[in-house]
Amino acid sequence: MRRLRVNWRVSLRLLGGVLKWLAVPLALPLVLAAVDGDPVVPFLVPIAITLAAGLGLEQLETEKNMYTREAYLMVSLSWFCVGLLGALPFVLAGNGLLAAPVNALFESMSGITTTGATVIDDFAVHSRAILLWRQVIQWLGGLGILVLAISILSQLSVGGAQLMETESQTKDVKKLTPRIAGTARLIWRLYAGITLLAAGGLFALGLAGIAPNMDAYNAVSHAMTAVATAGFSPQPDSVGAFAPAAQWLIVPFMFIGATNFILLYFFIKGDWGRPLRNEEFRFYVALVVGASVLMGLLLAVDPGVTTSGLEETARLATFQVVSLLTTTGFATVDFNAWSPAAKHLLFTCMFLGGMAGSTTCSIKLLRWLIILKSFRRDLFTTIHPETIKPVRLSGKAVDEDTIRDVFSYTMLSLVIFFLGAIVVVVDGARIGLGLSEFEALSAAAATFFNIGPAFGIAGPFNSYSPFSELTKTVMILLMYVGRIEIIPVLVLFTPSFWQS
Amino acid sequence: MRRLRVNWRVSLRLLGGVLKWLAVPLALPLVLAAVDGDPVVPFLVPIAITLAAGLGLEQLETEKNMYTREAYLMVSLSWFCVGLLGALPFVLAGNGLLAAPVNALFESMSGITTTGATVIDDFAVHSRAILLWRQVIQWLGGLGILVLAISILSQLSVGGAQLMETESQTKDVKKLTPRIAGTARLIWRLYAGITLLAAGGLFALGLAGIAPNMDAYNAVSHAMTAVATAGFSPQPDSVGAFAPAAQWLIVPFMFIGATNFILLYFFIKGDWGRPLRNEEFRFYVALVVGASVLMGLLLAVDPGVTTSGLEETARLATFQVVSLLTTTGFATVDFNAWSPAAKHLLFTCMFLGGMAGSTTCSIKLLRWLIILKSFRRDLFTTIHPETIKPVRLSGKAVDEDTIRDVFSYTMLSLVIFFLGAIVVVVDGARIGLGLSEFEALSAAAATFFNIGPAFGIAGPFNSYSPFSELTKTVMILLMYVGRIEIIPVLVLFTPSFWQS
Ligand SMILES: [K+]
Ligand SMILES: [K+]
Repeated sequence: MRRLRVNWRVSLRLLGGVLKWLAVPLALPLVLAAVDGDPVVPFLVPIAITLAAGLGLEQLETEKNMYTREAYLMVSLSWFCVGLLGALPFVLAGNGLLAAPVNALFESMSGITTTGATVIDDFAVHSRAILLWRQVIQWLGGLGILVLAISILSQLSVGGAQLMETESQTKDVKKLTPRIAGTARLIWRLYAGITLLAAGGLFALGLAGIAPNMDAYNAVSHAMTAVATAGFSPQPDSVGAFAPAAQWLIVPFMFIGATNFILLYFFIKGDWGRPLRNEEFRFYVALVVGASVLMGLLLAVDPGVTTSGLEETARLATFQVVSLLTTTGFATVDFNAWSPAAKHLLFTCMFLGGMAGSTTCSIKLLRWLIILKSFRRDLFTTIHPETIKPVRLSGKAVDEDTIRDVFSYTMLSLVIFFLGAIVVVVDGARIGLGLSEFEALSAAAATFFNIGPAFGIAGPFNSYSPFSELTKTVMILLMYVGRIEIIPVLVLFTPSFWQS
Repeated sequence: MRRLRVNWRVSLRLLGGVLKWLAVPLALPLVLAAVDGDPVVPFLVPIAITLAAGLGLEQLETEKNMYTREAYLMVSLSWFCVGLLGALPFVLAGNGLLAAPVNALFESMSGITTTGATVIDDFAVHSRAILLWRQVIQWLGGLGILVLAISILSQLSVGGAQLMETESQTKDVKKLTPRIAGTARLIWRLYAGITLLAAGGLFALGLAGIAPNMDAYNAVSHAMTAVATAGFSPQPDSVGAFAPAAQWLIVPFMFIGATNFILLYFFIKGDWGRPLRNEEFRFYVALVVGASVLMGLLLAVDPGVTTSGLEETARLATFQVVSLLTTTGFATVDFNAWSPAAKHLLFTCMFLGGMAGSTTCSIKLLRWLIILKSFRRDLFTTIHPETIKPVRLSGKAVDEDTIRDVFSYTMLSLVIFFLGAIVVVVDGARIGLGLSEFEALSAAAATFFNIGPAFGIAGPFNSYSPFSELTKTVMILLMYVGRIEIIPVLVLFTPSFWQS
């Protein structure tokens, strides 16, 4: 039997569980602050608050079952509250631009949504602990989105998310427990393992003297935000601060972060052929290779780009294409100086994203693949109206309602992006920023699609600090809404959500 | 029984019928050239060619029946060939920039597609007859699209076009003969009647001395391109050349041109309540009024815009909103000087368009209305998955496949627009045009959505002449593909179109 009203107590109690656990990652920068002799209060206070709020909310007496509406409410509340609490260390530390609440919230929301857009102009005024907190919160955001996408959104069929490879679609369903807790445990181990591998690899490059400045702190920091396709770096010049070998090593980890984690799981478990049978994965590989090669050619003929040779050209092209296509947002070079063709290739990548069920944001390749296949099918049935020809994904026919959902979700994304861009450009003109349309469009895309760096004023080695408080607030909302796939937030604003 | 191969003879014979009739409108500028003492050869030669080609193609022996594929081929060939033949007078006259074949084809395609983008920098070098030909070809393009949209595309269900109000949906089907020829006759009378009314009204303003320079030539010229929502003007400063009363009078005719003509027919026949019962019409009126009021407010607070008072502010706002929303493209002022907010309101209007079954291009309000209604419905069923709730248009449930088609068509439009814009900006950079992204985006939209003027370099009082031949060629294709609703051209490039 369906309950009549949304049971917000269930959502709040589950939120309590999320908040309680937030105390654990907050302990990491706390320890580093203690070791470095930096203030520990900015971390102690949030730990106390999260524990109190989390344990308090868990005391709510209610039934156990969560239905659709409770799930949406829980998801929306979780990202919002973690974003709020994540800003506390910045405000309490009180250094530089992050002392201002709107900036702190921007940075925190950019963290938990794995966006990687920063308002920090001067990295030197912040302690290593504060900079580590940015990395940790992004890593958490990546884990959160994996659990959300694979075990919640796919079941709620948000924008065709049910098409992604999930544990429930497999015959292995007994081994992979279908309960959210079980899926979360599985993903957590996989995610942590890959992050450790990345950190170990980077650290080894440092130890071997190949990337001398890649110490444990930097290895862990960049491993966390590569696998989370998140893109924060404690270095002002991002991954450009490290040797070519370290840059190359980060590429496969961004690539993995943008892969469906259930697919990864089966691959690691020995089903080597599974990725090849997955059409979305093949599309993903084809796009990464195709765009990297095209970018390499564009850079090779670009008189404004001088490289030491083929390796550097290939590295610049591959790194930047993978970084933007996977919505990571790392940079090894200021790509603002590239040719219009190269910049527009990157700009186009921003609208793609990685696979569904990965840590990436943006539209995602699953949806684009369905859209392209639907275009092709429609052209065929236009000529042969008497034929019924389903769209097939990895051999299976896709439900027509699901195709409509995919179109609908993508269109909704583009409409929100467009409106966001207009706010950015008009409000930028109001405060005399002198924004070009390209800067505004890319800044709106970079925040809404959780990419991070944009072009021009908010380029990879610049920051979002010049934008007005109004624009920053709109961008905070764009990051938030974009990260949890729009629908969970939008439904909260429909009257029928709260009615019986 | 379905034939196995496309019967191109049927398409060619019907094309012959179209080309043959093209000789009649070519006689109009011919007469004017003879009266003015200008060369008549630029019109005599095309008349001879169209008559010969048309009558020749009509001799093709073939069956009478036209199926889907033949219809698409006929439509694609018609717009293409009329575009080619329409360029002949410009090349043969050999004056100014229009003497160059690519410019002549651009101008002609801009005419027949009712775009109104011009490459003319210096209007003075062209005869009145040549300038009248631009007006006539736009008027023909408007008539052609009405017949195409109402009697062909709606039956082929292109992008949800079957939702528009057509003669076949009415109970009056016996009176309104469902055959294309019958529909064409009905539309032709209505279209010609409204144009005469507009011309008469404008001429009367001239006679009365209220708009002194509105002579018969200008009255007919602007009446033709207002009702066709096409936008060419023989005046370098467009409708800005005329008195306020003439500007005001042109507004309702652009509005009428962007209305579904079957709706107009029933209204004129005495069914006064019909427009009120049509949701798309109500949406159209609401958008026109809302955007005009908003624009008025934006202009009122714009320090860069000085007007003589409320009337002028209201006129500038209403005229420009109606002109861009209906995809006409007339201008009374250089709106490049307006604030970013005002310019982005106009830019947004470019993506809307008028009603389906009108002379407008762009996405069209029918599709946006379905998309918005579908968003709202999806939010509801997201929360109430057990409910089945159809999307309703004017009270009738809309088929789910049709909704998917609407999304698909709109998405396809946006993808083509985006790719077109990238060509414009990258190729513009190649030849050193120094185009801003906004200029490129608006120029791509202005051509693909058949609007005409864009912002910046291709603004309302400028021209498209600075673009490279490559960009102009791409724009010619954009205008062409955008005008006939994409699908009829795209299907020609699928192998299954030509196979059995
Ligand atoms: K990111
Ligand atoms: K137009």
